[in-house]
Amino acid sequence: MSLESIRYERGRLEILDQLLLPLQTRYIKVQGVEDGWKVINKMQVRGAPAIAIVGCLSLAIEILKDDCVDKKIMRQEIEGKLNYLVSARPTAVNIKLAADELINLANSLSADENVTADDFRERLIRNIESMLIKDIEDNKAIGKFGCETILKRLEGDSHVRVLTHCNTGSLATAGYGTALGVIRSLHAAKRLEHVYCTETRPYNQGARLTAYELVHEKIPSTLIIDSMVSALMHARNITAVVVGADRVAANGDTANKIGTYQIAIVAKYHNVPFYVAAPLTSIDMSLKSGDRIKIEERPDREMTHIGEHRIAAPGISCWNPSFDITPASLITGIIIEKGVFSPGKLHEAVP
Amino acid sequence: MSLESIRYERGRLEILDQLLLPLQTRYIKVQGVEDGWKVINKMQVRGAPAIAIVGCLSLAIEILKDDCVDKKIMRQEIEGKLNYLVSARPTAVNIKLAADELINLANSLSADENVTADDFRERLIRNIESMLIKDIEDNKAIGKFGCETILKRLEGDSHVRVLTHCNTGSLATAGYGTALGVIRSLHAAKRLEHVYCTETRPYNQGARLTAYELVHEKIPSTLIIDSMVSALMHARNITAVVVGADRVAANGDTANKIGTYQIAIVAKYHNVPFYVAAPLTSIDMSLKSGDRIKIEERPDREMTHIGEHRIAAPGISCWNPSFDITPASLITGIIIEKGVFSPGKLHEAVP
Repeated sequence: MSLESIRYERGRLEILDQLLLPLQTRYIKVQGVEDGWKVINKMQVRGAPAIAIVGCLSLAIEILKDDCVDKKIMRQEIEGKLNYLVSARPTAVNIKLAADELINLANSLSADENVTADDFRERLIRNIESMLIKDIEDNKAIGKFGCETILKRLEGDSHVRVLTHCNTGSLATAGYGTALGVIRSLHAAKRLEHVYCTETRPYNQGARLTAYELVHEKIPSTLIIDSMVSALMHARNITAVVVGADRVAANGDTANKIGTYQIAIVAKYHNVPFYVAAPLTSIDMSLKSGDRIKIEERPDREMTHIGEHRIAAPGISCWNPSFDITPASLITGIIIEKGVFSPGKLHEAVP
Repeated sequence: MSLESIRYERGRLEILDQLLLPLQTRYIKVQGVEDGWKVINKMQVRGAPAIAIVGCLSLAIEILKDDCVDKKIMRQEIEGKLNYLVSARPTAVNIKLAADELINLANSLSADENVTADDFRERLIRNIESMLIKDIEDNKAIGKFGCETILKRLEGDSHVRVLTHCNTGSLATAGYGTALGVIRSLHAAKRLEHVYCTETRPYNQGARLTAYELVHEKIPSTLIIDSMVSALMHARNITAVVVGADRVAANGDTANKIGTYQIAIVAKYHNVPFYVAAPLTSIDMSLKSGDRIKIEERPDREMTHIGEHRIAAPGISCWNPSFDITPASLITGIIIEKGVFSPGKLHEAVP
C-alpha cells in the first residue's frame, strides 16, 4: 500500500518527518495548531496539498478538545488559528484557500440559530476530515485517468517505462499522489515495467523522497541525474513523462519544479508524450498564460551546500529559480480528476 | 592570468591538488614517475590532456636526475616507466598516445650511433617539455578561433553571454583550456558580459572546478543547476553554448560529459548556437559515427553520496553513464586549433 505520510483518526494526528527522510522514518505527533504550525514552518511536511491538509487537521484536533459553548467565541478563535496556520508558509496557496473555505463555513454556522455549539464543532471537523478523503479520491481519479490515457497509446498489452520529476507522491499530498499516483495506478494494473525518477536538484526531492516512496512500495525504479534525461530517452524506449504542477494557467502553460521545461523539450525531441497531472485546484483560470506567473528565486545556499558540506567553489554567484514554465505547446495532456484534457480544451473542464 | 594547475620548470614539477578544490588550494611536488603515477591514479590531476602531460613531465624530472651512460638501459627503463604511468588511468587515451610517441623517439635515438647518452636525455626532456607548450598553444588557438566565430554572429560590438558545461579549463589541460579557453579569449577581448556554468552532476566538475577557475580569474559568472539550462535560455538572451569533447567521430557526433546532449537539444529549441571546442587529438576519424562510442557507466555511489554523506534513498538503483553522444545535427561548429568547422566539413580539417 501507499506510504502513509499523514496518519489521522479522529483526535489523533501524526505526520512522517520529511526532514529525516530518506535516512530515518519517524512520525511526529501533532497535538494542535501550534504543532501544526511548527511542522509546516520547519518543512517536516511539504507539498502544497499536504500542507493544507495537515494545517486543517491540526485545527480539527484542537476543536475536538474544545468545550466552549459560545459559538461566537469559537468562530473568532477558529479564524485566528487559521490565519496563524497560513502564516507558517505564506506562499503556499492551497492552505490559504482551505482556510478561507473553513472561515466561511464557520461564519454561516455561527449565524445559524439552529446549530448548537456541538453541531458547530462536528460540522467543522467533518468538513476538514472530508478534505483528507477528497484529496485521496481526487488523486486516485487522476491516477486512473492517467493510467488509461497512457495505456491507450500502446499496442497490445505491452508494458510501459515512465519518467517522472520531483516528488508528487504520498509525501506531497494527502496520500497516493498526482504524477506518482498515475505511476501507482500503472503499477497496480501490472502494466508498469519501470519508472525512472530524476534527482531533482538542488533540493533533491526525487533522490530523497520519490526514490524513498518507490523503494518503500517495491515499484521497479531507477534514479537518474537531471541531465541524463536525454541520454535515457535515447537509450531506453520511454513510453511517457508524467510530472506534477504547482499551477496551470488557463491556456495550459504549467509552472512546476525547475527542470520540468527542459524535460518537456527533450521529450518533444524524442517524440515521447508529456503529461501534467494535477488536481483542479491547481488550475488558475484567472491567469491567461504562464507569462503571468512570478518565478520564485531561492537562496544560493540550496545550491552551494548539502547540509553543512560546501559543494561549490566559494565566491561563485548562483541563480536559483525554484520552478519554470512549460509552454502548453509541449504538453500532450493535462490529467485532472475529471479526465485528461489537451491544454487547449482545459476551459471545457474547469467550471 | 590563467590558474596554474601544472607548475613546471626544468627539474621541478608541482600540480594543484584537485581533490582539495574548491575548498583548499594546495600544490603537490611531483619528484618522479612514482609520484606521477600516484597523482594520476588518485585523481589529484584529471582531464585527459592534463593526465598525459603530468605523467610525461614526471618522467622528464626523473630522466634529468639519471646519470646512466648506457642508452640501451635508459631506453628500456623509459619504456617500462611509461607503461607504468599509463596503467594509472588505463582508459585515458591521451597518455597512451603520448607514451607511444616517446617510446618511438627513444627507440630511434637509442639506435642512432651519433646520439650520446646526454643528447638522448636532452632530446627526450625537450620533447616532453614541448608537449606542455604545444597544448597551451593549441588551446590558445582554439580560444582565438572560438572567440572570432562567436563574435562574428553579433551585430556591432555588443557583449556575449555564454553557457558552458563541466570543466574544460586550466584544470583539465596544460593550461588555458578548450571551451573555457574560448571563454577566456572572449573575456580578454572585453566582449564577455557573463558566463553561466552548470553544476555538472554527479561529480560536480562545474560547481567545484569551473566555478573555482572563474572566481579565481574574476570572470563575471553564475552557477546554475543542470536542469536550469532551458529556464536560463528563456530568461536571459544566451549568445552561444561552448562545451568540450571527450571524443569526436568522423561525422561530427561528439561524446562529452553526461548532459551535453540535453543542452544541445534545448539550445536548438531556443535557436542558440552550440559549439564543441577540442584539440585535433580528440577527433577520431576511425569512428564513422557516435554509435560506435562505448558509454562508460560509473558506480552508483557517485550519485547517492556526497563525500560520506548519503543523499539518495537507501535501496534505490541508479543509472550513471558518464557521458552521452551529441549528434552532429545539433552542433553548429567544432572549434579546433586550425579553425572552426561544421561537423560535415571535419574531414577537410583532419589529415
